[in-house]
Amino acid sequence: MIKISLPDGSIKEFESGATAMEVAKSISEGFARNVISAKFNDTIIETSTPLTTDGSLILYTWNDKEGKKAFWHSTSHVMAQAIEALYPGSKLTIGPAIENGFYYDVDFGERKISENDFKEIENKMLEIARGKHDFKMRAVSKEEALNYYKEQNNPFKVELIENLEDGTITFCDHDTFTDLCRGGHIPNTGIIKAVKLMSAAGAYWRGNENNPQLTRVYGTSFPKQKDLKEYLELLEEAKKRDHRKLGKELELFTFSKRVGQGLPLWLPKGAALRERLENFLKKAQKTAGYEMVVTPHIGQKELYETSGHYEKYGADSFQPILTPHEGEEFLLKPMNCPHHCEIYNSAPWSYRDLPKRFAEFGTVYRYEQSGELHGLTRVRGFTQDDAHIFCTPDQLDSEFKKVIDLTLYVFDSLGFTDFTAQVSLRDPDNKEKYIGSDEVWEKAENAILSAAKEKGLKYVVETGEAAFYGPKLDFMVKDALGRSWQLGTIQVDYNLPERFDLTYKGSDNETHRPVMIHRAPFGSMERFIAVLLENTGGNFPLWLMPEQAIILSLSEKYEKYSQKVLSLLENNEIRALANHRNDTIGKKIREAEMSKIPYMLIVGEQEEKDGTVSVRKHGEGDIGTMPIEEFAELINNEIKKTLKAFEV
Amino acid sequence: MIKISLPDGSIKEFESGATAMEVAKSISEGFARNVISAKFNDTIIETSTPLTTDGSLILYTWNDKEGKKAFWHSTSHVMAQAIEALYPGSKLTIGPAIENGFYYDVDFGERKISENDFKEIENKMLEIARGKHDFKMRAVSKEEALNYYKEQNNPFKVELIENLEDGTITFCDHDTFTDLCRGGHIPNTGIIKAVKLMSAAGAYWRGNENNPQLTRVYGTSFPKQKDLKEYLELLEEAKKRDHRKLGKELELFTFSKRVGQGLPLWLPKGAALRERLENFLKKAQKTAGYEMVVTPHIGQKELYETSGHYEKYGADSFQPILTPHEGEEFLLKPMNCPHHCEIYNSAPWSYRDLPKRFAEFGTVYRYEQSGELHGLTRVRGFTQDDAHIFCTPDQLDSEFKKVIDLTLYVFDSLGFTDFTAQVSLRDPDNKEKYIGSDEVWEKAENAILSAAKEKGLKYVVETGEAAFYGPKLDFMVKDALGRSWQLGTIQVDYNLPERFDLTYKGSDNETHRPVMIHRAPFGSMERFIAVLLENTGGNFPLWLMPEQAIILSLSEKYEKYSQKVLSLLENNEIRALANHRNDTIGKKIREAEMSKIPYMLIVGEQEEKDGTVSVRKHGEGDIGTMPIEEFAELINNEIKKTLKAFEV
Repeated sequence: MIKISLPDGSIKEFESGATAMEVAKSISEGFARNVISAKFNDTIIETSTPLTTDGSLILYTWNDKEGKKAFWHSTSHVMAQAIEALYPGSKLTIGPAIENGFYYDVDFGERKISENDFKEIENKMLEIARGKHDFKMRAVSKEEALNYYKEQNNPFKVELIENLEDGTITFCDHDTFTDLCRGGHIPNTGIIKAVKLMSAAGAYWRGNENNPQLTRVYGTSFPKQKDLKEYLELLEEAKKRDHRKLGKELELFTFSKRVGQGLPLWLPKGAALRERLENFLKKAQKTAGYEMVVTPHIGQKELYETSGHYEKYGADSFQPILTPHEGEEFLLKPMNCPHHCEIYNSAPWSYRDLPKRFAEFGTVYRYEQSGELHGLTRVRGFTQDDAHIFCTPDQLDSEFKKVIDLTLYVFDSLGFTDFTAQVSLRDPDNKEKYIGSDEVWEKAENAILSAAKEKGLKYVVETGEAAFYGPKLDFMVKDALGRSWQLGTIQVDYNLPERFDLTYKGSDNETHRPVMIHRAPFGSMERFIAVLLENTGGNFPLWLMPEQAIILSLSEKYEKYSQKVLSLLENNEIRALANHRNDTIGKKIREAEMSKIPYMLIVGEQEEKDGTVSVRKHGEGDIGTMPIEEFAELINNEIKKTLKAFEV
Repeated sequence: MIKISLPDGSIKEFESGATAMEVAKSISEGFARNVISAKFNDTIIETSTPLTTDGSLILYTWNDKEGKKAFWHSTSHVMAQAIEALYPGSKLTIGPAIENGFYYDVDFGERKISENDFKEIENKMLEIARGKHDFKMRAVSKEEALNYYKEQNNPFKVELIENLEDGTITFCDHDTFTDLCRGGHIPNTGIIKAVKLMSAAGAYWRGNENNPQLTRVYGTSFPKQKDLKEYLELLEEAKKRDHRKLGKELELFTFSKRVGQGLPLWLPKGAALRERLENFLKKAQKTAGYEMVVTPHIGQKELYETSGHYEKYGADSFQPILTPHEGEEFLLKPMNCPHHCEIYNSAPWSYRDLPKRFAEFGTVYRYEQSGELHGLTRVRGFTQDDAHIFCTPDQLDSEFKKVIDLTLYVFDSLGFTDFTAQVSLRDPDNKEKYIGSDEVWEKAENAILSAAKEKGLKYVVETGEAAFYGPKLDFMVKDALGRSWQLGTIQVDYNLPERFDLTYKGSDNETHRPVMIHRAPFGSMERFIAVLLENTGGNFPLWLMPEQAIILSLSEKYEKYSQKVLSLLENNEIRALANHRNDTIGKKIREAEMSKIPYMLIVGEQEEKDGTVSVRKHGEGDIGTMPIEEFAELINNEIKKTLKAFEV
C-alpha cells in the first residue's frame, strides 16, 4: 500500500501501482472525467502512470495552467501525426506547448506550407482526435531510439537523442504515431474537440541562423468548440485594441527608422495625453507632499559605479559616452535614483526634515535587443513617473501605506478595478544574498505585509523574489480582455543609502542612515499608455479624453450658435471642438464616433431658439435635449465621478 | 591740402600734416577736450598722428568703445611705469586693454605681488598721471628695439620683437617710460583721474604651461573718480546678483561632481520655477497655435548625418553611444530639429495643413570644455524652449511676425524692457557659402527686415552674419546693471527641409518644399533663469514668485486665523504660506525679506477681530491694513498688470 497526500491535506491509501486517474476516480467519477494531467512529487506525470511510492499528488483539469499545457502539448502530437500523414517525408523536430497553444517545428523539405493548407491539417487532426487514442509513454534504449529515427531519415531527432543519456529516453505512442517525448499528456485524443492553426513562420533549427530553416506551425486547441469561438473573438478584439494600431489611428505616437528603433516620437495628441496624465499625477503628488525635481539624462560613469548599476548592467547597456578631450565618460541614465541620491546629498538633513519625497517624470534609456522591442511596451527610452522617498526607518510603515493609497487612487481614476499585488520577500535560507541586517529586513517585510493587509489588497507572497537591496510590492492589473499587465511598483532600498552615504541627524543628535522607497504608480508613461489603450480601446475615462464633446451643427447657418456653445463649454473647462462644415449630420456623427469623442452636441434651428443642445453619447446614442448649462453640469458631474480629488 | 571726411558725411580740407586733434579742434574746442582716440581709414591712430592723405576720420571720446580701449591701454603703460619704479628688475611682457579695464603680465622675479601691494602701485600711477605726460609714438629699427630690451635683460620683449618685421616696429614714450607698442593711446596721462587694481593671478607666458609663469595684474581706470565709484558699486551689486550665489540662496539648483560638471540638478524650488515659466509659455504657445511634441534625447548617428550636424560638429561633441550588439550608434541630441523633421515626415501634408508648429521643451546636450563652463549660462545639458514652424514660403512673412509678437510678449511679461535685435543677413559677395536660391533668400531677408520694422524693433543689421542655412534675428536684452545678454533667437532654415526631403502638396497639386523657422524666446531654460536672476536679483515679477505672500502671525494664538487667511488666498489662486512659529514678529519679517517674498501679511488680535490683514511690501514696508478680500484683489490686479494674456 502507498500513501497519497492530496492538495486539500487529506492522505489516502492505495495499492501500489494505482494511477493518478484511479486516484481521481476514488474522489469522484465526475471529477475524474475532467482530470487531464497530474503532478506527483513535483514531477509532471501521465494520468496513466502507476504510482509505486508514497507521495503528494496534484490532479489538473482544463481550468489549471498545467492542464492546458498538457492539452496543448498533446495536440502538438496530433498535429505532427496529421502533418506526417498529409505531407509524407516531412521531418519533425520539437513541438512544445506555449502560452495559448502550441507549435511544432517541421522540415517540410521543398514544400511551402501556408494558411491555405491549414484547413486540411485541422480536419485531419479532428479526424485523429475523434479516434479517442490513448497517449502511452514507453521507455526506450538510446540505441533503439536512434535506430527508429535513423530509419525515418530524421537528423533532427537523432541529434536530440544523441544529447540524451541512455536510460532516460521515452517515446510517446498514440494511434499509429510515435514521438520522442518526456511526457505530460492528456489521457486520450478524444478530449480535443476544437483545433485551430494560427500561423506558420520560419524558424532556424535550435534558433541558430547557421542551421537549416524549418517551418514553425502555430496552433491552439480546446475541449469545446465554444471555447475556441470565444478565444478567436478575444483575439479579434485584442487586435482592434492593439495599442500600436490605436496609437496610429488616434495619432498619438510614431517611430522613425532614422531616430532609431524603440524610441517613440510623441505626436501632438499623444504629447497632450501624456501631459494630462502627468498633470493628474502631479496634482495628487503635490497633495501627498512630493516635491518635483529635474535631473539630466546622463551622469558620469563614476555615478553608476557608486550606485552599483555599472558593475551589474554596464556590459549589456548603451555603452559609455566619451568626450573629445579630458577623458570623461558619461552614461545615459538607466534609472533616476542615483541622481536623486545626489540631490539628497546636496544639503544636510535632520529627522525633522524627513520624509523628503523627490519626484520626477524622468526619461531613462535602457538597451534592449531590437528583436525584443514591441510598440510602447518594450522600448529603449521611456519616462518613469518616478519618485524616491527618503525617510527614517520608523517612517517606513506609514510611507509605504501612503504610497499604496496613491497607487490605488491612480488605478481607480483610470478604470483599473481588477488588480492583484505581489509581495516579494527575501529567501530566509539565503540571507547572505541580501544587503541589510535581519532587523531592518524584518521591519520592512512586516511593513509591506501589514500595509497590504490593512489596505485590503488581494496579494500573493513570493519568497525569495525580493531584490538584493530590499523587499517590494508590484501591482498586476487585469485589462478588459482578461490579460495581466505589470504596472506600478513600490520597492524598499537599503543599498543606495549605504552606497551614497546618505545621512540625517536623528533626534539623538547622532548621524543615521535613511531608508529609500522607489515607487512609480504608472510604471512608465509609455507602458501605461499602451495598457490604457488596450484596456479601453481608446475610450479613456472622460476626464482624460482629448476632446470631451463635439458640437455638430445641422448646417453652416448655426455656426454662430455653435461658437457660443463652444465658448460656454470652454468656460466650464470642458475640452470641446465644433464641426460646422457643410457635411450631412450623419457623416458628422459617424466621424465623431470614429474619433471616440464621448459626447456629440447637435445644434440646429430649434436648439438655437431654445438655447439647448441635443446630446448623443458615444456608443449609446441620443440621450435627450437640454440647456447648455445642464449639459455642462452633466458632463462635469460625470468627470467628478471617475476623477475624485486625492485626499491624504 | 588733404580732404578729411567725417562720420556726419561732411568733408573738410586741411593742410597735409594736420593731426586728428587739430581736426577735432576745428569742429569745436569743447568737443576736442573730450576726444581721446581716433581712427583713420579703418586704422586706430594717435590723436597726435599727422594726417598726410585724403581719408575718413572718426574721433572717439570716453563714451565710445574705442575711446575706452585707448584709455585703458594707455593706463596699462602707466601701471607698467609704476611697477618698474616700485619693483626694479621686474620684466614687462604684454599689457592689453580688455573688457572693463586692462592687464599687464609681469615677471616679478622672486617677488610675490598681492592685493596688499595694490594701494602703493595705484598711488604711484596717480602721481605719474598727474604729470600730464604726452604719449608719443616713434618708429624704431629692429636692431634698435632688440638692443633696448637686451640691455634691460628682458627676454620676453626680445622674443616679441624677433617675430616682428623690421620697419613696422614702434615704441611709445611718455615721461621717462618707453614700451614696445603698436599704438592707440589717449593724448596724455593727465586724463586718467581714477585707477583701481582689481586682482593678480598667475598666467603663463604666451598661455603655454611649459613657459615661465608670470603675474597678470588686472586694473581699471576712469576719467572721473565718480565713474570708478559707480563701477565698483555695480560690481558689488553684480556679485550679489550672481545667479550662482542666488541659485544657492534660493535653493534653486545644485551641481554634483559625481553627476558631472555643467549638468545642473534642479532642486524642488528651481524645478517649480521652471515649471511656472514653462506653463506660462505653453499657454501663450497654445493660443498662438503651437502643438507640443515629445522626442527622445538620443538619435541614431544616421539622423545627424542626414541633418549635417554630425559632419559639422561630430568630432568636438559628446562621442557616439555604441550598443553591446547589433553595431548601432546613437548620439546625444545637440538639437531638437532633426527629431521634429522626422515628426513632420511621419504624415503627408497639404498646404491647407500648414503652418505646423511643433514645440517641445527639449533637453539637449552639447560638449563644452570644463574650463568654459559657468553656472547656468554655460552648461553641457540644457532645455530649449524650442519650436519649429513648417510653413509655405508665402506664410514666412506672417509667421515671422507672429514669432516676434510672442517673443516680445515673453520679454514684456518678464520685465525685460530694454532690448535690441540683430538681423543677420548673408554676405552678398559670397553667395556660394549659403544654401538656397537668390529668390528665397531675398524673400526671407525682406520678411525679417519688414517684420522688424513693422514691430518697431531697435535693430542692427549684420551683413554676412547669417547662418549658411538662412537669415536670422537674435534678441539681446540689457539687464538692470546694463549688461547685455543674448536670449531669444528666430532663424529661417532652407537646409533641413532639403536634407530631410520635407514636402507638402500645394494648391496646384504639386509637391513643394516647406520653409522651417527655428525659434526659442527664452533661448534655454537654464540661461534664461540665470539672466532673470541677475536682472531681478531674485525679485521676480509677482506672477512668477515661488511664494507671493506670507502670513506672519503676531503669536501662536492667531494660528487659526492665519490658516483661514491662507485658505482664502489659496482659493484666490495666490501662492502663499504661513509662519505662525513662536518667534518675534521682527524676526519673521527679516526672514520673509531675506526670502524675497513680495507681500507679508501680519495678523494679530485686531486683524482677527476685523477680518483684515496688515500688509507690508518687500523692500517698501507697511502699506496699510485691509480686508483679506481687498488684499486678494490688490495682488491679483498687480499680477494682471505684469502678466497679460497673450493675444493673437
